Amino acid sequence: MFFQLSRCVIAAALLTVLPVANAASAAQAADPLPSWNEGGTKSSILEFVKETTTTGSKDFVPLKDRIATFDQDGTLWVEHPLYTQFLYILSKANDVVAKHPSFAEQEPFKTVLSGDMEKISKLSTQEILRIAVIAQDGLSVEAYNADVEKWLASARDPRWGKPYTDLIYQPMLELMEYLRANGYKTYIVTGGGQDFVRTYSESVYGIPVEQIAGTSFSTQFKYDPAGKAYLALQPELFFDDDFGGKARGIGLFIGKRPYFSAGNSTGDREMLEYTTSGEGRRLGMLVFHDDAKREYAYGPAQGLPETQVGTFTQNLYDEAVAKNWSIISMKNDWKKIFKFD
Amino acid sequence: MFFQLSRCVIAAALLTVLPVANAASAAQAADPLPSWNEGGTKSSILEFVKETTTTGSKDFVPLKDRIATFDQDGTLWVEHPLYTQFLYILSKANDVVAKHPSFAEQEPFKTVLSGDMEKISKLSTQEILRIAVIAQDGLSVEAYNADVEKWLASARDPRWGKPYTDLIYQPMLELMEYLRANGYKTYIVTGGGQDFVRTYSESVYGIPVEQIAGTSFSTQFKYDPAGKAYLALQPELFFDDDFGGKARGIGLFIGKRPYFSAGNSTGDREMLEYTTSGEGRRLGMLVFHDDAKREYAYGPAQGLPETQVGTFTQNLYDEAVAKNWSIISMKNDWKKIFKFD
Repeated sequence: MFFQLSRCVIAAALLTVLPVANAASAAQAADPLPSWNEGGTKSSILEFVKETTTTGSKDFVPLKDRIATFDQDGTLWVEHPLYTQFLYILSKANDVVAKHPSFAEQEPFKTVLSGDMEKISKLSTQEILRIAVIAQDGLSVEAYNADVEKWLASARDPRWGKPYTDLIYQPMLELMEYLRANGYKTYIVTGGGQDFVRTYSESVYGIPVEQIAGTSFSTQFKYDPAGKAYLALQPELFFDDDFGGKARGIGLFIGKRPYFSAGNSTGDREMLEYTTSGEGRRLGMLVFHDDAKREYAYGPAQGLPETQVGTFTQNLYDEAVAKNWSIISMKNDWKKIFKFD
Repeated sequence: MFFQLSRCVIAAALLTVLPVANAASAAQAADPLPSWNEGGTKSSILEFVKETTTTGSKDFVPLKDRIATFDQDGTLWVEHPLYTQFLYILSKANDVVAKHPSFAEQEPFKTVLSGDMEKISKLSTQEILRIAVIAQDGLSVEAYNADVEKWLASARDPRWGKPYTDLIYQPMLELMEYLRANGYKTYIVTGGGQDFVRTYSESVYGIPVEQIAGTSFSTQFKYDPAGKAYLALQPELFFDDDFGGKARGIGLFIGKRPYFSAGNSTGDREMLEYTTSGEGRRLGMLVFHDDAKREYAYGPAQGLPETQVGTFTQNLYDEAVAKNWSIISMKNDWKKIFKFD
């Protein structure tokens, strides 16, 4: 966005505005979605963009209203076996116990320190958030971001042996870039932490931090000893950006009903319902993890294994079919999953 | 913004990026602030923009970090004798009493229906918000926006006999446009209602609704009888974007510390402190209403009359001087106040 903006400033001085359609067709000249197999899903994207950005089309959407929202975990990057943010939070357990030794014998710390991944993976979101709340309490937002950055630089996913920020779905990067090239403003609307995702959203997704809507903790306005003002994280959840909260988050942070939304689990249902309930042509998409060989396979929709992380129920699957949302089969729709494939 | 974005799309295809400094000097060729008198205040703006946008300057700020935040009431448009949004809320009292006749004898409705402006202007914010809460309860955000739009189209300010959206300070419009022409992303950070300001922000200020941070009520995700999803306003304050809340709102909605902030009252103190506590060159500005002849004069700073609406204390004035914030004298710094002057 900000690179486009830099061109804007010059463009304003040098150019008369051409119809947006030209830009669209220019973007389409080369295949904008090379990692997508030909077929219904890819066609639904190309057709949606063509119909909503071609001047004169009955479904033409003015630039200012071109909003596209994306869930993150399981939609833009790998979420199994456990959300990346949860792994970051678990890595803080030792620091917390070092500061508060009495926690060593209390849950969830006892389980986390045991290193028993079997048991750890069964911890509830509330138990894991309890670690986060204690670990980050009072930190300035800048200090929190710096700590997340440090962790992301060294942490590696055990299956691929790569930084978690390499485990981004290449087809989705192409989709976001294609939408932006056609005037869509791309947002991440995540049940994960807004400040966590903001740490890397610009470098990894090309999405500026101000276009991240997510779950957040309260902050307090404070002064450091030198009298400098800062925001300190507080041990209390402020906004839960999941399920209905995703639609409310869109209202709060964007204030416009998206024309495009992509998710992958029951937590994204309301975001897609809110998007596709709008007037005119809208597109809802759900990434379906049906590729155990190249990534993971989980549901329980279509008989795939049950999971607590990124649950995709048969009920959601049936609603998607009934409402003409596109279901993205990782196995059949994606030529490659990662840039490094 | 979205017009610039439309140019972006074409620029991406046609242009190699020129240094931003060229755009800046292009913008400066003609006086970008014609409604500002020459002098210290105008110079502080020109110098700030030059130093933060000229490649090679030690205070150069990358495009992605160029964030400028503006309070609205009393900073961008007239707030006396009463906030425009309060006048809208008061106009709802009759509808509420028509629906709930028993309220006619209860405060604040009794006072509002009396039409006694003297008493009405003494109602507390809590009393006025009570009317809002009842009037808008359950409305979809779209229905609320449509109602505000309808009111703005017919309501007239008694002193100038003009729509409230004409009572915008021309020098501030020029300042926002000048900052945008130099790559700054302009936001409104208001103690007023986020949804209220979003109704007209694009047409009046050229600021898209997603760049409005403000006070908001909770919403609920609901389905209409046809099964369409929408957001319904709830009778409960969700976020109070005033005083420390303005700094917290910047963290929540923008996630970056601004380089420029403008306000006009004690409610903007923390926003300016947060902005100017950042590293490098920052600019904080306060509009001082010292022009009873062309607009209004109130303080109580510098011996001007006390007011409950847009209070500017001597303490804030002294902090501004001590911290090198620019105090904008409406009387001395502005050639004209309104476009129609």
